[in-house]
Amino acid sequence: MIDMTSARTPRRTGRPGRPGYDLDSLLAVAVKVFNDKGYDGTSMDVLADRLGISKSSIYHHVAGKEELLELALNRALNALFAVTTEAGATEGPSIERLEYLVRRSVEILVAELPYVTLLLRVRGNSAVERRALARRREFDEFVSGLAVAAADEGDLAIGIDPHLLSRLLFGTVNSLIEWYRPRSSGSSTEIADAVVALTFDGLRRT
Amino acid sequence: MIDMTSARTPRRTGRPGRPGYDLDSLLAVAVKVFNDKGYDGTSMDVLADRLGISKSSIYHHVAGKEELLELALNRALNALFAVTTEAGATEGPSIERLEYLVRRSVEILVAELPYVTLLLRVRGNSAVERRALARRREFDEFVSGLAVAAADEGDLAIGIDPHLLSRLLFGTVNSLIEWYRPRSSGSSTEIADAVVALTFDGLRRT
Repeated sequence: MIDMTSARTPRRTGRPGRPGYDLDSLLAVAVKVFNDKGYDGTSMDVLADRLGISKSSIYHHVAGKEELLELALNRALNALFAVTTEAGATEGPSIERLEYLVRRSVEILVAELPYVTLLLRVRGNSAVERRALARRREFDEFVSGLAVAAADEGDLAIGIDPHLLSRLLFGTVNSLIEWYRPRSSGSSTEIADAVVALTFDGLRRT
Repeated sequence: MIDMTSARTPRRTGRPGRPGYDLDSLLAVAVKVFNDKGYDGTSMDVLADRLGISKSSIYHHVAGKEELLELALNRALNALFAVTTEAGATEGPSIERLEYLVRRSVEILVAELPYVTLLLRVRGNSAVERRALARRREFDEFVSGLAVAAADEGDLAIGIDPHLLSRLLFGTVNSLIEWYRPRSSGSSTEIADAVVALTFDGLRRT
């Protein structure tokens, strides 16, 4: 998905019509604009203006803004799904796998913040958005499955519907996009530790 | 804030220019439109069209859409702040007060879902929005204060910065707006029980 023939860092040539971005850096700017103005409120003209290049330079990389949206959503989704095949999520007691998944999801959210933010705002207004929502549901099913297995293994302290549990756990994780700022909010490890402590150990000393 | 001289239920007279809503029911429709289209994307023309009344009928109740926004945000904020003065939030061990606050906040979110949804999407684009954000911070301070007191009283099982704790706790609560549907998602008591079980007792059997 990345055009390796172009420069990896944003670079403007000053000549209109000449692409000055590779796909990766173009996508990074597009996602920022989508998050700021909303995807529906962002035209190719707005994108070209913000990138400082012509629309035809954008079309050199992608067929249109919907392809940019799909690339961005897939970047977030692929990172999340990659976790489900890691050893930490596939070996050992289910409660440990679940903790691993929560911890890694926090790390991915922090590392891919603009892309995950865009993903979490998708409402299903187009085929691309509906595919992304379907993959989110598939991810939720994986989490619910781990919750069911952890209950079967006798490792859950609380009785709670696994789908509700999955929603609340990832509600906690996903709420980070509302306030997390890379430079001031602490490392992803600190945040992941806090999320896991709250949801796995619980607040109350017993 | 409610015009008691008008009817309490939506009623259209069929005569343009004649107000057919009281302020309460007009506000309910306006908030739905703000949530659907975004506040910035909602003009008075759009509101009048959706209400099926003339703009002058709206101006009979409010000075403009910003007053509708402020009324709606205050409805959510006043409900949340009312909890902070209830006995459950002001008497007894701080850990119990904190649990009470979380539980009641879930109930208010469910009871006032469109108003809380609007509140949680405010980004500070105007004086009205900035006042709402300031009151949200004030509420967060109350929650953080309870977390500090609970730690001092030796009732917290985990070491976690009180501001981070407040953000994560209400991240869990607030994430409900993403999926909660009154008719299908269970009662507010069931959801509140689940949120409290997850965050106060924790998932893991020890």
